[in-house]
Amino acid sequence: MSERVEESDPGLEADVFARDCASRPVLHNVTGRWGVLALVALREGPYRFSALRRRVEGVSERMLSQTLQALERDGMVHRAVLEAIPPRVEYTLTELGAEVAERLEALIVVLESNIDAITAAQAAYQPRHAAE
Amino acid sequence: MSERVEESDPGLEADVFARDCASRPVLHNVTGRWGVLALVALREGPYRFSALRRRVEGVSERMLSQTLQALERDGMVHRAVLEAIPPRVEYTLTELGAEVAERLEALIVVLESNIDAITAAQAAYQPRHAAE
Repeated sequence: MSERVEESDPGLEADVFARDCASRPVLHNVTGRWGVLALVALREGPYRFSALRRRVEGVSERMLSQTLQALERDGMVHRAVLEAIPPRVEYTLTELGAEVAERLEALIVVLESNIDAITAAQAAYQPRHAAE
Repeated sequence: MSERVEESDPGLEADVFARDCASRPVLHNVTGRWGVLALVALREGPYRFSALRRRVEGVSERMLSQTLQALERDGMVHRAVLEAIPPRVEYTLTELGAEVAERLEALIVVLESNIDAITAAQAAYQPRHAAE
């Protein structure tokens, strides 16, 4: 399949199913392994980098930094440098980021409240040998 | 970081922020690059493999196959082999999968309807040089 590069046409509706839609990489950033957790954590209030890193267990400094930069670039997260000695950097959700994080939290609630059914399904699953 | 394997304790509430919570890999599967699109596509109704592959533009046969197996294992997707000549394989959402897909669609709607604001934020973004 050839890679096509298309100018995004502002007259077209965004469609995440379309290969070149601008919404696809954004979806990828907000649903990435650490993007989800960072956004949902920020619903609790502003976080400094190090506190956010403790909240999102297991994330490396490098991955959290990359994650926050991608979220900031997409307009989901605001990074504020507060005048203090030493200067403090604080991350907050933008209005759009708050909307997105709300939807992600709703998703997580469904998963967490069904975790017993999910682990039962995993235990019962029989992997198949044949391809499709 | 060492890979630890722990028995999940059914007495504990699921917490996706906890490093070893069983809900984390499930979240990863349903929000993966192709997992999201497969689940949301299946809201439209049952799909055969090849039709689903056409719907989710850009996915390879191998990736879609892996994605569907992970979703089936987590109890999100049901794979039915229909008696016919030749036999037909059809994928449908389970009840849980439908709930999850509904939340994912709500997320996508937010992104698609804000794509202009997002692309504006991307254009205005100034990458920084310093870490963090």
